Amino acid sequence: MSGNTFGKKFSLTTFGESHGEAIGGIIDGCPSNIELDLNEIQHELNRRKPGQSNIVTQRKESDTVQFLSGIFEGKTTGTPIGFIIPNENQKSKDYGHLADHFRPSHADYTYQKKYGIRDYRGGGRSSARETACRVVAGAIAKQIIQPIKITAFVSSIGNISLKKTYKELDFNQIETNAVRCPDAEFAVQMEELIKTTRKQGDTLGGIITCVVQNVPAGLGNPVFDRLEADLAKAMLSINATKGFEIGSGFSGTQMKGSQHNDYFNPDGSTKTNFSGGVQGGISNGMDIYFNVAFKPVATLMQPQEMLSESGEIITVDGKGRHDVCVVPRAVPIVEAMTALVLADFIL
Amino acid sequence: MSGNTFGKKFSLTTFGESHGEAIGGIIDGCPSNIELDLNEIQHELNRRKPGQSNIVTQRKESDTVQFLSGIFEGKTTGTPIGFIIPNENQKSKDYGHLADHFRPSHADYTYQKKYGIRDYRGGGRSSARETACRVVAGAIAKQIIQPIKITAFVSSIGNISLKKTYKELDFNQIETNAVRCPDAEFAVQMEELIKTTRKQGDTLGGIITCVVQNVPAGLGNPVFDRLEADLAKAMLSINATKGFEIGSGFSGTQMKGSQHNDYFNPDGSTKTNFSGGVQGGISNGMDIYFNVAFKPVATLMQPQEMLSESGEIITVDGKGRHDVCVVPRAVPIVEAMTALVLADFIL
Amino acid sequence: MSGNTFGKKFSLTTFGESHGEAIGGIIDGCPSNIELDLNEIQHELNRRKPGQSNIVTQRKESDTVQFLSGIFEGKTTGTPIGFIIPNENQKSKDYGHLADHFRPSHADYTYQKKYGIRDYRGGGRSSARETACRVVAGAIAKQIIQPIKITAFVSSIGNISLKKTYKELDFNQIETNAVRCPDAEFAVQMEELIKTTRKQGDTLGGIITCVVQNVPAGLGNPVFDRLEADLAKAMLSINATKGFEIGSGFSGTQMKGSQHNDYFNPDGSTKTNFSGGVQGGISNGMDIYFNVAFKPVATLMQPQEMLSESGEIITVDGKGRHDVCVVPRAVPIVEAMTALVLADFIL
Amino acid sequence: MSGNTFGKKFSLTTFGESHGEAIGGIIDGCPSNIELDLNEIQHELNRRKPGQSNIVTQRKESDTVQFLSGIFEGKTTGTPIGFIIPNENQKSKDYGHLADHFRPSHADYTYQKKYGIRDYRGGGRSSARETACRVVAGAIAKQIIQPIKITAFVSSIGNISLKKTYKELDFNQIETNAVRCPDAEFAVQMEELIKTTRKQGDTLGGIITCVVQNVPAGLGNPVFDRLEADLAKAMLSINATKGFEIGSGFSGTQMKGSQHNDYFNPDGSTKTNFSGGVQGGISNGMDIYFNVAFKPVATLMQPQEMLSESGEIITVDGKGRHDVCVVPRAVPIVEAMTALVLADFIL
Repeated sequence: MSGNTFGKKFSLTTFGESHGEAIGGIIDGCPSNIELDLNEIQHELNRRKPGQSNIVTQRKESDTVQFLSGIFEGKTTGTPIGFIIPNENQKSKDYGHLADHFRPSHADYTYQKKYGIRDYRGGGRSSARETACRVVAGAIAKQIIQPIKITAFVSSIGNISLKKTYKELDFNQIETNAVRCPDAEFAVQMEELIKTTRKQGDTLGGIITCVVQNVPAGLGNPVFDRLEADLAKAMLSINATKGFEIGSGFSGTQMKGSQHNDYFNPDGSTKTNFSGGVQGGISNGMDIYFNVAFKPVATLMQPQEMLSESGEIITVDGKGRHDVCVVPRAVPIVEAMTALVLADFIL
Repeated sequence: MSGNTFGKKFSLTTFGESHGEAIGGIIDGCPSNIELDLNEIQHELNRRKPGQSNIVTQRKESDTVQFLSGIFEGKTTGTPIGFIIPNENQKSKDYGHLADHFRPSHADYTYQKKYGIRDYRGGGRSSARETACRVVAGAIAKQIIQPIKITAFVSSIGNISLKKTYKELDFNQIETNAVRCPDAEFAVQMEELIKTTRKQGDTLGGIITCVVQNVPAGLGNPVFDRLEADLAKAMLSINATKGFEIGSGFSGTQMKGSQHNDYFNPDGSTKTNFSGGVQGGISNGMDIYFNVAFKPVATLMQPQEMLSESGEIITVDGKGRHDVCVVPRAVPIVEAMTALVLADFIL
Repeated sequence: MSGNTFGKKFSLTTFGESHGEAIGGIIDGCPSNIELDLNEIQHELNRRKPGQSNIVTQRKESDTVQFLSGIFEGKTTGTPIGFIIPNENQKSKDYGHLADHFRPSHADYTYQKKYGIRDYRGGGRSSARETACRVVAGAIAKQIIQPIKITAFVSSIGNISLKKTYKELDFNQIETNAVRCPDAEFAVQMEELIKTTRKQGDTLGGIITCVVQNVPAGLGNPVFDRLEADLAKAMLSINATKGFEIGSGFSGTQMKGSQHNDYFNPDGSTKTNFSGGVQGGISNGMDIYFNVAFKPVATLMQPQEMLSESGEIITVDGKGRHDVCVVPRAVPIVEAMTALVLADFIL
Repeated sequence: MSGNTFGKKFSLTTFGESHGEAIGGIIDGCPSNIELDLNEIQHELNRRKPGQSNIVTQRKESDTVQFLSGIFEGKTTGTPIGFIIPNENQKSKDYGHLADHFRPSHADYTYQKKYGIRDYRGGGRSSARETACRVVAGAIAKQIIQPIKITAFVSSIGNISLKKTYKELDFNQIETNAVRCPDAEFAVQMEELIKTTRKQGDTLGGIITCVVQNVPAGLGNPVFDRLEADLAKAMLSINATKGFEIGSGFSGTQMKGSQHNDYFNPDGSTKTNFSGGVQGGISNGMDIYFNVAFKPVATLMQPQEMLSESGEIITVDGKGRHDVCVVPRAVPIVEAMTALVLADFIL
């Protein structure tokens, strides 16, 4: 009800600020008697954390998930799975300068307006750090919904965009480069763009494409809880996202119906898949694919105008070391949220 | 839970197939003692119905909403508002030919796969007819959330797209033409395109832009029920939608952070509004604006291949008279869903 | 959220005031492809309606349910089942005298306090008339949860109470008398008590016992949504109820643990059943049985003090013809709510 | 959805087994800017824990709550409050003997049937230990709903029952004795009964009465989420409860309507309060009072028959040291659940 729970049958409720003692969550509705691969969960968490590459980010965090309940002798018991991820950096001194002013295009101002108080240290609840909890839950969901396979990758950073469809790409290449782009040539270009932009003290946005394979037909609950509606909500609930499109998406609006219609094969599959695997809000068994737009990072390494609580515009230097582009790190988050949506429909 | 309820505090639950006796819904959570303008509700419903123009559609329906409860002596009582909209065309003969085959890019196949049965008459539950109930509830929500003002319009049909931002447009022109485009010149082009496409027996998609003005800061419940997340879900829950973008959206992914950041004015407003009125999942008091992509209509006035239940590909002639482009008719639906999302956060 | 929906997976949302055009509801989550016996549903509704016996009640209503959706060619389609029950008596003249004063132990005062407005005709939303919608949904649930068998009966009216346990009773006798008591001797006594009390212009309360047989083990979702917790909520949501006890209930508090413990048979059944079929919030496969307390009817056929809106105590004559005791009529309502609870756990 | 969340607007989700690393929970929907008295919360937790008196229990636990989020500089921030209570006794050796057999009238059998697996150590999730999380959340709710005052006490243990109404009692005496009974004379009798029963290796049940004062009129959401319905659910969700009655309860069924009706005073209060502060599912401003029945403790200090997994009846000696009567310890739990229900309606 109050916004920190996702899902109904397989639900995740999270808590935690970036500089509190720990963040964490509760997964309710996980089936019993499932043998969880805990290393795989930690592996997913490692994919999300900063400091994996000198290209992508600069800070280092060691995120280690601790499970507190719901698992007994390696198997799920059907009871809620509670977990925490301790925060290593709880020093709040560094953020004291943010206590009384609002950064542009951050949540500082809106949290203050909504709640009349905010934990300003490191963005508090609005920090992307909370997404670590999503990755933990998503990693469990991934294990549950097998053999469904979810693969996300970076298809665009700034003005550099892959021109190929996902079927022309080699997914095995995604984790071979720091930008998680399954095309070596474009990956190099994206990395160069990130390096150049860093030198300018500026930041970048981009697009993640997500592909879901081996999907059974029948997932989605019209008329409101359509599969694509829940996916859209899941994606727009991730920090810094500004758009979602499934199948032919925005470009499909320019096609004629005769071009766009996906004609059937005798086995119920379709010759084309402009629908993106969803018709009438329900999966049809074809691959689901969609794009998610991320705005450029709002924290810059250059002086910026901010608003003080007393209503003055002040200029503040860029401090610390921040991501130039969070899109590669968001890949496991997009996958996790996709897994949560699917688990909720399957269970 | 089962997909036919939208909203938590101000909730709409709907029922009804296109060729049953009636469709309808229940609005729960409407505040008491509000004087409702019932004519205005019927007016919104009239905006949605087919047959308003010989350009847009060909069938005629007379949708009349009947309120059965929750209103006493013209005012809401705080109890649930039940309503029905009788269906005038319940003849199922015309649709007998659809009983045993699946149209491409319709919900015929997926409903059959999910439920093992379907009311095939006119699309049954998957028919866009159910959106009439959304318009009724949205019209009530609009009255409740005043002075918030929601304005949607057609910004693109096929390959014809408005080049202006919403601030350069005159919203008073929206209802002056059949395509609900607030630019007379483009409206004519769109109408021409529709006429041409009809002669080809083909169909069109398009984009609706929605603008919300007079929004208070503070709406949205992070981390999952962000304002933009709920708007995205609302939009993708509408028939035929394939995409949603807010603020700078997909094109914003190509901007640098220094360009994209919305710098403050001393009063808390921002000089630019690439954020689209939402930061950290919470409204900041600036205008909210977003785009919704609609695929071209799947029902064509030309022969098409379909799949029979027995697994044969058959060619079926286009029958009846259908919309070439539903985007103009979807304008009040987009507004209604927006109103439902906002009411749920405000109440 | 706003109180007019019961259940999550198999949910019922209702609307309607006693003197509006109709009451009705939407059932969402009903499985598809189930052949419904509509006569049986109407039969359950008939069991609830007033006017079945000159002993129990005095008014006559003809409640006929009309299904508007979700059923196609006699089978459920998996889409929401919308239904209405038209009100026959919409004349509001008779209730004008209630517009400005509050009856004791009715909802008049609390509705006015909560909503600041009320449809005073016949109790409006607070009228027991809304329970007709519960009976419709419960009758559908009963058909879905077969072979589970739910049997409720009157075990006490006023100070006349059955002394036998349910195992000593013949359920076939329940519908053979006007008070729905499965013991002929006590039934006569109860009927006599009702007649005598009517002459006094007074009213009676009583207790309904409900027994659920053929229950599978495993129903109930601890720690909060225990089977007995949801049953308790269901029962206390019925008009005029003041108590709920399951298994040994209040009298069990006086037993020692060594007496109360239900020792196992080798097949997992138990020798005694003081638990009432529920242990740790989950059904154990034994019969579930519970009691529900109903207060005496608040509307009397004698002069009573009431509170006027202006704060004066006035004496008003008893008007019309009312039930002396609603407990027999509540039997199908108790069964219906039980069925709704069970369906929600089973589906 | 899966049973471990209570409340909608002010919601508590819990996790944890009795012998895992920790139990804990997340409170979502707590208003911002409230200065919490953390000592008071710990104090409530101390009231619940075992080992407070040699009369009531024998084991010692030190429950210390650690808040991990949602509180900043002593005030709530409006973000979710995550907390854990570490378990001190995680040794599972002692419980190895329970791995393959089911205790009578415990949840062992039903958990195994439902989930096909269970953490048998100390009852796992079904242990009353999870109620500690309820007490934490309830203690926060209590601070939020001030000046509403919730007072629970033991009104009956075994066959010893207070004969006075709550108005004749001195609530200040409740915490002066080990059985939490506000009547010194009866308290002594109850303590004697507990001592005698312990010597017999047997156990006791009892009744808790709860009184809510300073309640505003208007709480409760008919028709399903009535105040008494949600209270009933809350109480029956507590371990070992078998019954709930509000106001006149079961004994009220024997009264005539003319006796039972609560006649008004000119200020809207009522001369009597058989309704228990609730009419039509909504609070009327009078005191709310209700009783909760607890069955005798199922764990005995004497040999008992149990069922082995292989289907044999075996006799097992009573081991360890257990509560003879949990009712006094349940007093703060009843208060906590009451506070959660009220907070959900008030916020």
